[in-house]
Amino acid sequence: MDRIAVLYRLESPACEIEARAQALAIEQSVEMPLAAIRAPGVLKDVVGRVDSIEADGDGFFLVRIGLALETMGRDIGQLLNMLFGNSSILDHVRLLDADFSQDLLKHYGGPRFGVLGLREKLQAFDRPLTATAIKPQGLASQDLAALCAVFSQAGIDIIKDDHGMGDQSYAPFAIRVAACQKAVAGSRTLYAPHLTGGPKALAEQLRVVEGEGVGMVMVSPMLMGLPVVQELVALHLKVPVLAHPAMAGAARIAPPLLLGKLFRMIGADALVYPNHGGRFGYSPKTCQGLVDAAKGEWGGMKPALPVPAGGMTLARVPEMLRFYGQDVILLIGGALLMAGDRLLEESRAFVSAVAGKDAP
Amino acid sequence: MDRIAVLYRLESPACEIEARAQALAIEQSVEMPLAAIRAPGVLKDVVGRVDSIEADGDGFFLVRIGLALETMGRDIGQLLNMLFGNSSILDHVRLLDADFSQDLLKHYGGPRFGVLGLREKLQAFDRPLTATAIKPQGLASQDLAALCAVFSQAGIDIIKDDHGMGDQSYAPFAIRVAACQKAVAGSRTLYAPHLTGGPKALAEQLRVVEGEGVGMVMVSPMLMGLPVVQELVALHLKVPVLAHPAMAGAARIAPPLLLGKLFRMIGADALVYPNHGGRFGYSPKTCQGLVDAAKGEWGGMKPALPVPAGGMTLARVPEMLRFYGQDVILLIGGALLMAGDRLLEESRAFVSAVAGKDAP
Repeated sequence: MDRIAVLYRLESPACEIEARAQALAIEQSVEMPLAAIRAPGVLKDVVGRVDSIEADGDGFFLVRIGLALETMGRDIGQLLNMLFGNSSILDHVRLLDADFSQDLLKHYGGPRFGVLGLREKLQAFDRPLTATAIKPQGLASQDLAALCAVFSQAGIDIIKDDHGMGDQSYAPFAIRVAACQKAVAGSRTLYAPHLTGGPKALAEQLRVVEGEGVGMVMVSPMLMGLPVVQELVALHLKVPVLAHPAMAGAARIAPPLLLGKLFRMIGADALVYPNHGGRFGYSPKTCQGLVDAAKGEWGGMKPALPVPAGGMTLARVPEMLRFYGQDVILLIGGALLMAGDRLLEESRAFVSAVAGKDAP
Repeated sequence: MDRIAVLYRLESPACEIEARAQALAIEQSVEMPLAAIRAPGVLKDVVGRVDSIEADGDGFFLVRIGLALETMGRDIGQLLNMLFGNSSILDHVRLLDADFSQDLLKHYGGPRFGVLGLREKLQAFDRPLTATAIKPQGLASQDLAALCAVFSQAGIDIIKDDHGMGDQSYAPFAIRVAACQKAVAGSRTLYAPHLTGGPKALAEQLRVVEGEGVGMVMVSPMLMGLPVVQELVALHLKVPVLAHPAMAGAARIAPPLLLGKLFRMIGADALVYPNHGGRFGYSPKTCQGLVDAAKGEWGGMKPALPVPAGGMTLARVPEMLRFYGQDVILLIGGALLMAGDRLLEESRAFVSAVAGKDAP
């Protein structure tokens, strides 16, 4: 199988870096103990491979890992998942870069307009381009349109929505976009409204964009979902895309809020997260906060079930039950598979331990 | 307008914390200089309000900011955007929590099954629940199904896909899910396949889930996009949802990769990002790396245009042009609006400066 080289920067004591690099290669590929893998093809082709380790300043190392291309499929979300899905939660790991294959790049295809296409659209070939944003949010559509008229009159190339603008009551998308596009119509200026929401809302917004003859759109991929942007571009958008970096720093959201509250709000019935004492850095306090957020009385919402995970073992079951009580899903993955031929028995022992019974 | 209280933790010298808190309140609301806002209603109701600041250890402060509910609309992406969209990029800011209104919570609705519904589905009322994952990826569908059969036989409540599983060639979603669901059919065990991809792929996966009688699904909201999960739950899914935290630590992805390469790969024609020397912490080196990634020769893809932004001013135009050259979109927002009545002139001056001409 083809591999792509992925570059990470790890914080680590020198004596531990080899083990940490190897753990990372496993985390981002098979995510289980190698000793429990029986298929020779998986060991040979799918398990991540540490290709190099070099010192990069005091206590830091550059680590190159070869990951199997085939694990990444053809979806940008899945690609990101294999590059950094779980490791994004590891405090000592930073994802730096990846050498994608030519084949992969061809599949994605990239910008449909790019530098030249956009210049052609703007009829501006021999100079840098200009852009501005309409602000502040809170203004009504006609006030924002008035700003557009001024900017367009001034000859600014691109006017984008403030990235805080979505479909708010004081300037609903359909009304705002119609007004702002009308304000730039007849000029060279492109107005780029901010697309937001789920697939249904986006489909409605695309109808507005097309109906009004809008010349560009803005998206925030980390808010909207990278796969959604990928599909919008591949199947629906006929105009250039302006990408906004909003939320590209999600790691600093407290887990009880992001996982416990926000995921619950949008309907998750159960929440997987790294338990304390496992492979990740969540503390018991963070876990407790997450559980409180997931299960606490909150606007009449049903509670969601915590699923502490990330390197749990049968031996930890009693302690985890004391910590979490009854309303929990205990998740054990690789440790069960370590049982090999005794998988059924080990699994039954897990079931029994959680049921508070001795294994039969 | 109603406000919700949002809690942040800021790293700051004591002498600067008031200014930083105020800057944060602006960043997460109107994102422009207050002096340039003319609408009294916006100043009164929309601009973020610093409600309290308290020390929280050496060099850290807890800051409570009241943000206007109406800016958040009814979409989870937009909500996250207003809580942390831009501030996620600020190294000294961490989003800790928010007090959502009852009305907002009612709108989202939360889990449809929750603890009790899931227990009913599993007919397991008086004990903790069990879960495991099928691994490693790289195995064929029938091998994964064989694991399911064992786990189900053992009485495990929930079997989830390894979160690395999507729609890979060695175990395509439709074949894997049919095989794994058949393996648990007739038992109490729920099999939860991992949904991945854009709206079109998801619609196909939902047909498989429904057709095969699958009892649960897993999603990774930070990969799929929170608004997509919101819509799946609101409109499409009839079974419980298991949420996975993959990518919940995106901040530690190097900007040249996340913005320069990945956003380009999915089709962005232009890329907004915080320029060095602005309101955010990107260094000139990071900016250069991002530009190289966005514009460099790369698998025959068209280049994307950099849009350095985040507190840029007219005075910086010459220096930015020296740094970025011709293929750039200069984005100036609030600084133009500071011109007040002279907005047209100031905007023209911007246009002229970028064109390399003196203002007319």
